[in-house]
Amino acid sequence: MTAAVSPTRAYRRLSVEQRRSQLLDAALSLFAHRAPEEVSLDDVAAAAGVSRPLVYRYFPGGKQQLYEAALRSAADDLEQCFAEPQDGPLTQRLSRAVDRYLAFVDEHDAGFSALLQGGSVVETSRTTAIVDGVRRSAVTHILAHMDLAEPAGPRLRTTVRMWVTAVEAASLIWLDEDKRPPLDELRELLVEQFVAQVAATAGRDPQTAEVVRRALALESPDGPVGELVRRVLPVVAQAAHLV
Amino acid sequence: MTAAVSPTRAYRRLSVEQRRSQLLDAALSLFAHRAPEEVSLDDVAAAAGVSRPLVYRYFPGGKQQLYEAALRSAADDLEQCFAEPQDGPLTQRLSRAVDRYLAFVDEHDAGFSALLQGGSVVETSRTTAIVDGVRRSAVTHILAHMDLAEPAGPRLRTTVRMWVTAVEAASLIWLDEDKRPPLDELRELLVEQFVAQVAATAGRDPQTAEVVRRALALESPDGPVGELVRRVLPVVAQAAHLV
Repeated sequence: MTAAVSPTRAYRRLSVEQRRSQLLDAALSLFAHRAPEEVSLDDVAAAAGVSRPLVYRYFPGGKQQLYEAALRSAADDLEQCFAEPQDGPLTQRLSRAVDRYLAFVDEHDAGFSALLQGGSVVETSRTTAIVDGVRRSAVTHILAHMDLAEPAGPRLRTTVRMWVTAVEAASLIWLDEDKRPPLDELRELLVEQFVAQVAATAGRDPQTAEVVRRALALESPDGPVGELVRRVLPVVAQAAHLV
Repeated sequence: MTAAVSPTRAYRRLSVEQRRSQLLDAALSLFAHRAPEEVSLDDVAAAAGVSRPLVYRYFPGGKQQLYEAALRSAADDLEQCFAEPQDGPLTQRLSRAVDRYLAFVDEHDAGFSALLQGGSVVETSRTTAIVDGVRRSAVTHILAHMDLAEPAGPRLRTTVRMWVTAVEAASLIWLDEDKRPPLDELRELLVEQFVAQVAATAGRDPQTAEVVRRALALESPDGPVGELVRRVLPVVAQAAHLV
């Protein structure tokens, strides 16, 4: 649009942005499928079809800066996974979010493992803060779906944070085990764990109990909760002597 | 024993061991309560009442080597938390293990946070491997308590690994929130989460279902499972339309 006003400057400015984003894309796809140790600045330059000095002109901090910029961009994508319209059964919304999260894990496999397994050469307090930001954002999104009248209390918040960390752990295990079981099964397991964990907390926390009551009213028999209840009931029937 | 054979050498050898262990103890208590960035070799020397060169004689790799040795020693202690006689209700054994684990977290607060939050200057692939070893050991111990006829399948193993990671996350949250709630409440929450998570997996996995059936038979009404079932039932009663 501004090109009509000042074509040359606009062209240049756009070109800088485009170049930066092209370098970042090249870095992202390299860092997604290899450990950061295995990606050199030359690789990024080659992948983007430019010279090494040009990469340095855009990222004077070299590989570390490029890595952090790529991570920041990946983190933004990941945070979007949990953005979801607030209607329909809670487990349906969660299933869609988990599907997107797992698709991201699948797409960024080696980079995801390297980043989260720790001890990487590019890990700094800044990269740790970015990863932690994603976790916090996921927790905030999930709590927002619970439509709470008051801020989440410690039991509910801790439960959701525990689940988010467990999802991360399960993703690492899944990558570690050559992407088995199929993603559908993994998502199913994660959503069912969420339901079970929140239900357990509801036993002691009135706020969580209220969330569960409202959520259950929206669930349908063929949804994840219905399926879980029908499958687990026969197993725990033996707990009758405990009631 | 060998002292009778060669008193001088035995004395010297013992002294070396004692000195090493004294330095390690000093390092351990410093690293337990401060971030590694805030512990210097001079601090360790001062705490042990020795000179800085002496610390270097025992730990030529300096602070990094001392940190790793202290971590290795702490990891050994932590792995012992889950060693527990294999009798009585499963949740009773797990409660005792979690109590020991949380006491360790309480005792090593700042060091535990610094280590697990990542991005620390002393973090290397070796420290990461030590931490991962503790997680694996916890999973192995817990699975051993399940008295399985065959090696744990992927669903059961993933569930236990998810819980172990979630316990770590909950410990970090607990430290972050000034050690609230009281440890008893946190242990209760963690054990109940374990029960809920394993029960959910039992719905889809015959091996886990078998574990749950056998475990339930040993539980008593006043144990954690009985309490959980009685508390959660009224909340999920609204799920009747899903069955």
